[in-house]
Amino acid sequence: MERTLVKEIVGKVGEKVCLKGWVSTKRDHGKLTFIDIRDRSGKAQLVGYQKMSELSNEDVIEIIGTVKERSEKQINLEIATGKVEVDVEEYKVLAKSATLPFDMSKDELDLELPTLLDHRALTLRHPRTQAIFKVQAVIIDSFREYMKSQDFFEFQAPAIAPAVAEGGAEVFEVKYFEHKAFLSQSPQLYKQIVMSAFERVFSVNKVFRAEPSVTTRHLTEIVSLDAEMGFIDSWTDVRDMAENVVKYVFKQVSEKCADELKLYGVTVPSTIDKTPTISLREAQQKIFEKTGSDVRQEKDLNPEDEREICKIIKDETGSEIVFVYGYPTRKKPFYVYPNPENPEFNEGMDLLCRGVEWLSGGRRVNDFDQLSKHVEAWKMDPKTIKLFLDAFKYGVPPEGGFAFGAERMTMQILQLPNIRMANMFPRDMERVDFRLKQKENDN
Amino acid sequence: MERTLVKEIVGKVGEKVCLKGWVSTKRDHGKLTFIDIRDRSGKAQLVGYQKMSELSNEDVIEIIGTVKERSEKQINLEIATGKVEVDVEEYKVLAKSATLPFDMSKDELDLELPTLLDHRALTLRHPRTQAIFKVQAVIIDSFREYMKSQDFFEFQAPAIAPAVAEGGAEVFEVKYFEHKAFLSQSPQLYKQIVMSAFERVFSVNKVFRAEPSVTTRHLTEIVSLDAEMGFIDSWTDVRDMAENVVKYVFKQVSEKCADELKLYGVTVPSTIDKTPTISLREAQQKIFEKTGSDVRQEKDLNPEDEREICKIIKDETGSEIVFVYGYPTRKKPFYVYPNPENPEFNEGMDLLCRGVEWLSGGRRVNDFDQLSKHVEAWKMDPKTIKLFLDAFKYGVPPEGGFAFGAERMTMQILQLPNIRMANMFPRDMERVDFRLKQKENDN
Repeated sequence: MERTLVKEIVGKVGEKVCLKGWVSTKRDHGKLTFIDIRDRSGKAQLVGYQKMSELSNEDVIEIIGTVKERSEKQINLEIATGKVEVDVEEYKVLAKSATLPFDMSKDELDLELPTLLDHRALTLRHPRTQAIFKVQAVIIDSFREYMKSQDFFEFQAPAIAPAVAEGGAEVFEVKYFEHKAFLSQSPQLYKQIVMSAFERVFSVNKVFRAEPSVTTRHLTEIVSLDAEMGFIDSWTDVRDMAENVVKYVFKQVSEKCADELKLYGVTVPSTIDKTPTISLREAQQKIFEKTGSDVRQEKDLNPEDEREICKIIKDETGSEIVFVYGYPTRKKPFYVYPNPENPEFNEGMDLLCRGVEWLSGGRRVNDFDQLSKHVEAWKMDPKTIKLFLDAFKYGVPPEGGFAFGAERMTMQILQLPNIRMANMFPRDMERVDFRLKQKENDN
Repeated sequence: MERTLVKEIVGKVGEKVCLKGWVSTKRDHGKLTFIDIRDRSGKAQLVGYQKMSELSNEDVIEIIGTVKERSEKQINLEIATGKVEVDVEEYKVLAKSATLPFDMSKDELDLELPTLLDHRALTLRHPRTQAIFKVQAVIIDSFREYMKSQDFFEFQAPAIAPAVAEGGAEVFEVKYFEHKAFLSQSPQLYKQIVMSAFERVFSVNKVFRAEPSVTTRHLTEIVSLDAEMGFIDSWTDVRDMAENVVKYVFKQVSEKCADELKLYGVTVPSTIDKTPTISLREAQQKIFEKTGSDVRQEKDLNPEDEREICKIIKDETGSEIVFVYGYPTRKKPFYVYPNPENPEFNEGMDLLCRGVEWLSGGRRVNDFDQLSKHVEAWKMDPKTIKLFLDAFKYGVPPEGGFAFGAERMTMQILQLPNIRMANMFPRDMERVDFRLKQKENDN
């Protein structure tokens, strides 16, 4: 008999169906056993005979039964199948579960984050956990969808890098045969190379940061969503593209993940037609005027400033997103384009949302001579970026691009307290699946 | 003036347009200069005044001109814009190119592979190189598209792994703070974990193999296309899903990449309604009968056998793809499901095509007790795969899955002589962008 998905029973009252799934909860009522069965499509109530009380939560079962309408007072409007139930006629155990280490049947798992991650195989089954990754899948898919609609070409950026292009100690070293290699911190230089051949490119790929600190918003391995476009007239072309893709992602998430957003009691950030765009100095001035805190000479916004400027812009305009551009040129990477009218500040930009930086980008230096001067001024070794410099030696149009992290966007949309919740298998200083210290004690 | 893409001029005869792109070739004819301009959409002929002879190949230009029909004898049916040309009225150089190290204007780059890769930034601009990655993008996208249509959920498998799950020396070690970690050889165990929560899952991600050998079909970093599905009735459900996705990919590539296939003079592999499926022993018997080579006791097909069985099946049925299943259980990984009727052989399978293995998969052991026995028999340390075993401890339905490499599929469809051509930035023992030995000599 062909399997019916749980959500499909709604249209099958009076029909015999075969359901397969996990025992989510079980309640014994004398001669009757009530079971919530869970499959990838949702949950439904089974009414079983007494023997089914042998089942335990998370057992995998296959049942044959007849769909019927629930009596008025049994109706449960909280679940999509809440007006029907299935009278079980036969059942089979496909796989037994061991006794669970904690109660999986609650609406919310009552676990500390480390415990939740220690038991990742199990906690991934919980609807509240699954909601996070459904939102994330839609974010990533919508990013690709939008970029393709704008004629961007998808490429695969490498993870193993030959050298630490941008300097910095925060990079993982790989033993590469008898050589040293590194894990890529960013596909930045590769996407610029590929852009120089395909004009408009994007990638979805892993980047790695060996930051020796434990915060609620950093991981050592994340999914980076990157785009780069040639033949721009101004850095604002890059801003517009970034704005449009972010708005598209919000739209898709709010349409496709209505249930998931509801589960977390959140909405996607509100936006307005023309997203506010202010320079760093303007942002700092606004913060000064509002709070009295004088950060007007700082090279960047600190976390408190980011929260403050988001609040100010939301109050002023209703927009929860804001672009901040024009950072001090020498404080940013060598490839960021200096404003020709005021070269001390660049045409780099960040998108801030709900108090946090979500996206970075801007115009890049495309002229080879200017780029060579930057390489020298930034004291970089041109040999380590030869492939990149080659691209620009042979003619590259005015260009720019942007990047954002899938986990951070997921975390911020769902307003999760910790980015580790937005990664199925989060890696940090203390954990790679296992707690690293504990593992060493075991040995 | 708004930019027109090169391919769009076909419908704009008599109109004034602004084109932006690269000088692909230039021919001086006294007072006139003929230029082929190239952008992401294709090539077109510009007729320019004398001064444009200052331009060099790969300069980036912006022109304004009027589209006109070519005279009868000027028509070039080899390119999509071959019936029209653009009379240039104004032009601007957006970026100059240095003198090219080789002639980029030929239909085929006359370079040895190492040189082609040494100059990757430049050779990526060549239409013949771009064709490879257009086909690859369609392969990857079609895989995702098909899996989503079958209700598979996309997840992100980690690249950093805590331990070498399946043993073997062919793994890269990562210095992970004060610990050791490794680059993932396969998302196998993760996709089984995620399947145990989401039922049907797929991923597109990097895998890494430290094989200390240089062949034409291995790289150290590749893109793996992985899928896993729960609630199967038999391993043939997995085979059917793999067959369908491969056929879907072929269909999409032949529809969307007609020009690219033509450029390489190839077609996608031919398939028939029911893809031939034979056991390893049957395959070996066929090889014996055809060639006299007695491999009937071997544990696997060697490369010569793979070529031979593909030839035999193609002759017999017309299908260029064939499934071979039923390998000796103990010669394959611990998670592969033994045939209950003949446990010495498993329900693992490979898809062979054009003489090469393209895809591997099969049914997995889902029963926790059986899995535990395998872990012991295969002499594995259960601690290193605790997260994986946890999933199966708490109820996992009968399941299976498959994986294939994007680069190998690209290589085989286009019949490229070397897999390095099917990766933008191929990594192997001797190269990570740069030739490793050369780099060390430089230091």
